[in-house]
Amino acid sequence: MIPPTPLGMPDEDGSGEIARTDLSTPAVGRLSLYYRELHRLLDSGQTSTNSRDLAAMVNVSAAVVRRDLSSIGSVGRRGVGYDVESLANHIGAVLGSGVHWKAVMIGVGYLGNALLRYRGFERLGFSLAAAFDTDPAKIHQVVGSTKILPMDQLETVLREVKPELAILTVPSEQAKEVADKIVGLGIQGILNFAPTTLRVSSAVAVINVDLASELQQLAFRIQNG
Amino acid sequence: MIPPTPLGMPDEDGSGEIARTDLSTPAVGRLSLYYRELHRLLDSGQTSTNSRDLAAMVNVSAAVVRRDLSSIGSVGRRGVGYDVESLANHIGAVLGSGVHWKAVMIGVGYLGNALLRYRGFERLGFSLAAAFDTDPAKIHQVVGSTKILPMDQLETVLREVKPELAILTVPSEQAKEVADKIVGLGIQGILNFAPTTLRVSSAVAVINVDLASELQQLAFRIQNG
Repeated sequence: MIPPTPLGMPDEDGSGEIARTDLSTPAVGRLSLYYRELHRLLDSGQTSTNSRDLAAMVNVSAAVVRRDLSSIGSVGRRGVGYDVESLANHIGAVLGSGVHWKAVMIGVGYLGNALLRYRGFERLGFSLAAAFDTDPAKIHQVVGSTKILPMDQLETVLREVKPELAILTVPSEQAKEVADKIVGLGIQGILNFAPTTLRVSSAVAVINVDLASELQQLAFRIQNG
Repeated sequence: MIPPTPLGMPDEDGSGEIARTDLSTPAVGRLSLYYRELHRLLDSGQTSTNSRDLAAMVNVSAAVVRRDLSSIGSVGRRGVGYDVESLANHIGAVLGSGVHWKAVMIGVGYLGNALLRYRGFERLGFSLAAAFDTDPAKIHQVVGSTKILPMDQLETVLREVKPELAILTVPSEQAKEVADKIVGLGIQGILNFAPTTLRVSSAVAVINVDLASELQQLAFRIQNG
């Protein structure tokens, strides 16, 4: 197993063994789930695990786990398996969780409110530096540990704080305009909850989460199960 | 283009042209997005569209749109494209949106609260029949248009209302127990927001939505972009 580089930062020596760029989106999603389960094991004091147990936790086959982990250079030892902490650190390094990512949220409606209170983000190294809304009644409230600021401070704060990520929880009609604005201010990735597909510069990473679409996919599976 | 069957119900004559069971999960996801965009066009009064415009709305190639639509039996007419309403109805029938799906929610924390107020579900034919929570302060409140009931009424209500779907917004530690219980009461599909992978009977469809994992995938893309 390749030891994680100091501070969990991606290595920059060009070996390509830590920071992989050729992982598929589903593989990255699974790594993220292994990472979550490994941290649960760590919290419970467990020090070693194996591909079969990890597979059961994430609902994939043990072969998929072994392939995913070997693709990032982690090979379990026969009869011993994987060291939980080393593996967690290694996956964390690949996923960039050792990096301290700064995020801002635009639009603090009910969903934004719920996401600001969600502790799962901080655990993964994301800090929500600020949230923005147009509603005067919400301005200067602190939700979770994030202060809500007026939209007219967006530019100043983004130039100062330099967040990499934005969580977009505005109505669909405003999503495009807000996205263009924050991309212009240096945002590199957007997690978009507005039920519209964002089209921004290809240099910007966008993940669209459409909750109604998820429910629709579930219904499709039931209907055709 | 195959006309949708009456009431948008999947056809049952065995032709297999409406209710397709061999669509991949990503294809179903894309159909769900076309459906959303077609309804936006309908709302704006637009009557026809084409694969290129649909592709731009959903951020895929026109070839992918044509392949997806032809896989469900919809072929655009050269120089004319697709009739917006017919296509929306047809995709709706494939996705089961003509069916009236009943859902319940278990766990009304901040996220549950936000989801109960989300109007996107109703538009797609999902009704949230009831929500359940253990907190006495929340019981009998109406959020959105859904009443919050005590957990000890779960069994009675599920046997009476017979919902097909459940939205699980409980803490991770409770997810497994609650899932087993509602599956025992006849729930056929679970949209799970608890950050843990649910393992239930293979006869039950489960879609896990892990919001922290989505943010982690976004960070990975930025780091490796």
